Amino acid sequence: MKNKGIEELKEKLIGISHISATLSLLGWDQEVHMPPKAVDARAQTVAFLSGIVHEKFIGLDTEGSLTKLKNDLDSGKLKGKNAAIVYEVWRDFERARKLPETFVHELAEVTSKAQSIWAQAREKNDFALFLPWLSKIVKLKKQEAEYVGYTNSPYDALLDEYEPGMTSEEAYQILNDLKDFLVPLLKRIRLSRVKISTEKTKGVFPVDKQIIFNKYIAEKMGFDFGAGRIDESTHPFTTSSHPLDVRFTTRYKKNNLLYSVGSTIHEAGHGLYEQGLPIEHFGTPLAESMSMGIHESQSRMWENMIGKSKSFWKFFYPKMQKEFPAPFKKVDIDEFYKAVNKVTPSLIRTEADEVTYNLHIIIRFEIEKEMIEGSIELKDLPVIWKSKMKEYLGVDVPSDALGVLQDVHWSCGYIGYFPSYSFGNLYSAQFYATLVREIPDISKKIAGGDFEEIREWLRKNIHVHGRLYTAEKLVKKITGEGLNSKYFNEYLEKKYKEIYLL
Amino acid sequence: MKNKGIEELKEKLIGISHISATLSLLGWDQEVHMPPKAVDARAQTVAFLSGIVHEKFIGLDTEGSLTKLKNDLDSGKLKGKNAAIVYEVWRDFERARKLPETFVHELAEVTSKAQSIWAQAREKNDFALFLPWLSKIVKLKKQEAEYVGYTNSPYDALLDEYEPGMTSEEAYQILNDLKDFLVPLLKRIRLSRVKISTEKTKGVFPVDKQIIFNKYIAEKMGFDFGAGRIDESTHPFTTSSHPLDVRFTTRYKKNNLLYSVGSTIHEAGHGLYEQGLPIEHFGTPLAESMSMGIHESQSRMWENMIGKSKSFWKFFYPKMQKEFPAPFKKVDIDEFYKAVNKVTPSLIRTEADEVTYNLHIIIRFEIEKEMIEGSIELKDLPVIWKSKMKEYLGVDVPSDALGVLQDVHWSCGYIGYFPSYSFGNLYSAQFYATLVREIPDISKKIAGGDFEEIREWLRKNIHVHGRLYTAEKLVKKITGEGLNSKYFNEYLEKKYKEIYLL
Repeated sequence: MKNKGIEELKEKLIGISHISATLSLLGWDQEVHMPPKAVDARAQTVAFLSGIVHEKFIGLDTEGSLTKLKNDLDSGKLKGKNAAIVYEVWRDFERARKLPETFVHELAEVTSKAQSIWAQAREKNDFALFLPWLSKIVKLKKQEAEYVGYTNSPYDALLDEYEPGMTSEEAYQILNDLKDFLVPLLKRIRLSRVKISTEKTKGVFPVDKQIIFNKYIAEKMGFDFGAGRIDESTHPFTTSSHPLDVRFTTRYKKNNLLYSVGSTIHEAGHGLYEQGLPIEHFGTPLAESMSMGIHESQSRMWENMIGKSKSFWKFFYPKMQKEFPAPFKKVDIDEFYKAVNKVTPSLIRTEADEVTYNLHIIIRFEIEKEMIEGSIELKDLPVIWKSKMKEYLGVDVPSDALGVLQDVHWSCGYIGYFPSYSFGNLYSAQFYATLVREIPDISKKIAGGDFEEIREWLRKNIHVHGRLYTAEKLVKKITGEGLNSKYFNEYLEKKYKEIYLL
Repeated sequence: MKNKGIEELKEKLIGISHISATLSLLGWDQEVHMPPKAVDARAQTVAFLSGIVHEKFIGLDTEGSLTKLKNDLDSGKLKGKNAAIVYEVWRDFERARKLPETFVHELAEVTSKAQSIWAQAREKNDFALFLPWLSKIVKLKKQEAEYVGYTNSPYDALLDEYEPGMTSEEAYQILNDLKDFLVPLLKRIRLSRVKISTEKTKGVFPVDKQIIFNKYIAEKMGFDFGAGRIDESTHPFTTSSHPLDVRFTTRYKKNNLLYSVGSTIHEAGHGLYEQGLPIEHFGTPLAESMSMGIHESQSRMWENMIGKSKSFWKFFYPKMQKEFPAPFKKVDIDEFYKAVNKVTPSLIRTEADEVTYNLHIIIRFEIEKEMIEGSIELKDLPVIWKSKMKEYLGVDVPSDALGVLQDVHWSCGYIGYFPSYSFGNLYSAQFYATLVREIPDISKKIAGGDFEEIREWLRKNIHVHGRLYTAEKLVKKITGEGLNSKYFNEYLEKKYKEIYLL
């Protein structure tokens, strides 16, 4: 017998999802196709539709219908998927309900303006220009934390939005352990007698040929172009309106083929996750990702564990040499593999290698946690940034544009988001260790260009579950233990020992 | 002092327009980019958003707020633009309110299914397959006419949706007069000793070069690519989310450059209209087109009066010869001009020339009027179609796929729409006659590639008014008289007399 309350809830959720699907498409269009003069009108349209989503979401409890289901859940009347749906919807609902409409509106307005101020500030290398806006945003996010509630740190309340259930303390523990491993590893690599040169891999790569090659890789990975697209945008991203309409972007740089290829593999990893969500549950949390970290684990596994492996290039490199004889005809696969995996401490997060990437994240995490806990002055951020970059990465930051102003996140109000990138890396290594155990001839498969088994493993173990499990439960279910950074450390240790002869 | 009721109405209308703007974008995306497997999910999203629009539109009269404004209008308390807004909103509201929600839903569902059945029927050349669905649609449209109300013919109620204020009788009179002029004109052309061959203009035209050439023409016409785009789709169309976000499509056929060029000029004409609507009134009827016929007059004037004139090609043909030396280097402009304007009675409306086009429309009008008035049997349509094609155009129709099944309109429930195409042609000639009087050196301007004055004339006289005037009033205001087919007839007579030495 169908549960009438659940069926009614699902119908309302599907309605909301149709609007959210539209917002995804509007966001995609804005980055990919929208004519420049439409920017204000589009912002208003997005704000209006977002308002309807919020209104309808709050309206889920009209006449107490959602509260009734929550009571059923608490008294054990709901089981399995229905229980998961109500649990997750209630979680989102509670958070949404705690935020007064005036607050939501103010945050939207401030962050909308702050983004353009941030862009100017970065352009002009002028932190002081951004400071009053960052200050407003931090104040609002502190207020958000108070509305939402927390046990220890207000940062918990923000982190929870991206990585449900994770506390600041756990995050701190995990990321600090990671730092304690990475900083010495990086030192050993810098002291290695192996010096990798990327000179020979430089060249000019016509965009039309890059487009074809990128599409070929994504197709081989199993991205379904009947249910998705690849386009170009300044900042690569993936968005989904429905598991049968998943779109990602990459960016083509004439002088850097590996940039588009790396972005494509990363985004196609996100895309495969979105295409793997269960269509039959569209609209409910069962067809959504349970955390940013888990989402990122999918892109990172493809981009790094698979996409930067020797096996992967055993398959793709000959094709690449054929399509781009200059410069690759004169570079053998071992040299190419090393160039792909070269470790170079650098200024910009999005261009960082596997070893240094998480140090960029840790710096942001440490700073934003203190911003929200109020233990640092915002005006000191440039100095703090430079000192941490020097300490962890050994890099001198020449300007704020290449330093504290480089990321858009804070101007959007995304405080608590950065750690998910690192969790993604850790999850990916932990999942991959299990995957390798369960598919022992995986390297041979990859080297043969056969990704079906990997894709199906990810689909069966991760994608199809949507938000049926929390991230914590999912990791335990798949790997037998909670999130553990040792797998990532072991992966890096083994890989870079070999490359840099540590 | 601001009128509070009006301000509240405008705010609600702007909200509705944000959703309508989104629906435009969804429609555009569906034809241009959407991955094929997304079709069902998209249909549901569109239906859901359309439902919200309908709901919000009916909700305009919550607590009688719209009725109160209507009373103010009727008692003469509203003036100028406010009066026009309330008049036009009330007109739409009245129509929307008269249709029960169950009816709207049923019509949407039937036409959605009927479109795919129609596509199959056309594919298989099987009218019998489409007949039961056409029958359902005609029944529903008759019912719609009953809900909406009419004085003489139920067809009035349908026609009114596309050409407000026009009655079947007027339409019949206008189109019958037109037929009485066109049929003999066509006979004279067929008997002319001038035989135009298009053999020498045939060639192969690389799509990438066509894209550049088409964009060049649209830019010259004054279409603002900062506030719009051109893309490709199977059936060219124009859509607008906002006067600063107007998108049109064309279609590139490798063997037919004039197809894409003709479509581009036509759609850019629609696009200029949409870009010319007054931004400051976005959301209200003042930033909408008053009738399909007026909209079509804009595309037709550019496509035919301007885009098929000798002056136009004096400017563009040398450029075209340079870009496509084969075949055009060997074709002089007089020969090319004749080829562009060749009259050939043919089977397909969308490929018809200026002389025969309206005969295609007249056939559809005569048939659909009788369908709605119930004076013909639907099963007889193929026979009726063939006999009218023979009588008016002298053409033998070899199959229903190339006959009665060629257009999508009826399967969408668009009955009463076809006449707007002809009204567009008539309006365009009547406007153009005035324009030529007011800008006497127009031919010289066109031959110099200077379209600014034409564009500004159209903007000032037509675009900026939105729905401030009815089509009837607008035509009188601009040309000094009501819609009169004599201008179109004179235009054709003069042009084709010269070409065919009649």
